[in-house]
Amino acid sequence: MGHKLDDTIALLSRTPATFDALLRNLPEGWTQSNEGDGTFTAYEVVGHLIYADREDWIPRARRILEHGEAKAFDPFDRRGHVKQIAAKSLPQLLDEFRQVRDEALDQLRGLNLRAQDMERRGRHPALGTVTMSELLATWAAHDLTHLHQVSRIMAHQYREVVGPFAEYLGVMKCGGHGG
Amino acid sequence: MGHKLDDTIALLSRTPATFDALLRNLPEGWTQSNEGDGTFTAYEVVGHLIYADREDWIPRARRILEHGEAKAFDPFDRRGHVKQIAAKSLPQLLDEFRQVRDEALDQLRGLNLRAQDMERRGRHPALGTVTMSELLATWAAHDLTHLHQVSRIMAHQYREVVGPFAEYLGVMKCGGHGG
Repeated sequence: MGHKLDDTIALLSRTPATFDALLRNLPEGWTQSNEGDGTFTAYEVVGHLIYADREDWIPRARRILEHGEAKAFDPFDRRGHVKQIAAKSLPQLLDEFRQVRDEALDQLRGLNLRAQDMERRGRHPALGTVTMSELLATWAAHDLTHLHQVSRIMAHQYREVVGPFAEYLGVMKCGGHGG
Repeated sequence: MGHKLDDTIALLSRTPATFDALLRNLPEGWTQSNEGDGTFTAYEVVGHLIYADREDWIPRARRILEHGEAKAFDPFDRRGHVKQIAAKSLPQLLDEFRQVRDEALDQLRGLNLRAQDMERRGRHPALGTVTMSELLATWAAHDLTHLHQVSRIMAHQYREVVGPFAEYLGVMKCGGHGG
């Protein structure tokens, strides 16, 4: 599968509804539990996705268009969502994610990227040169990495109660790979 | 998190809508691609979940109630879905999954399991003694293992196009753990 922007947008547009279907009104044992000290709950993952849509993807795409490699992306704060989600309920975050994502996709379409724009280069503060195409494909893959994470966080809560069946459940063997 | 049947049912009842939100009408590059020879596509995973709801969970719960450990569960065919899904579209499978899951949950509620029933023992053909509680918790965890798998299968399709960002995407490092 090469990178077609339409494929990326198709995935990005579905993610808020996917998390909504999975998490809304689910018992808190599933949504407010993590995998241990310093790890995310499913609730926090939704907050992180909101924060990334506001602070990361579109601002970086604009940076490429405006400055190319001359000005590196601002660093992204992996815990930047913490203050923003304080006192919000999970249903509120799910509503906000849908709204923020819709706005971000409108902004993306508003950039009117042509095929040649996808090859434009920017500078990541740690990774160095990256292309617009790589940045936008990563936005979609980032959704998937967090869906993967949420399924693992939730499965972790049942690690004990499945007893010997754990052997057959791949997700129980997933160490996380840093996210 | 201990095992409460209400928590398990809450999750099980959401899974068809979760896969629906993620996969319906998504470009086939996402849904009909796998991770290599002998591995599942997202489309096949939905077929597998349907087959398991028909052949695995409820029949095994009934076996425990009727025979205890005296008669082992029938073995489950991990590729049993292949014939059943032939010629069906993904939207058809998503509709069928929702219907089969609703029916299976009706059957589960119809068993009227009491707290003491959750400790009843059955015999798995490979794992040996398991409890009703472990079987039903595994039904929910099995949904999560396949959501984890589908997010990984889909991310795999973008492994090349994300370029250097792959380093930051945990899902790209997930080897699968046998499912």
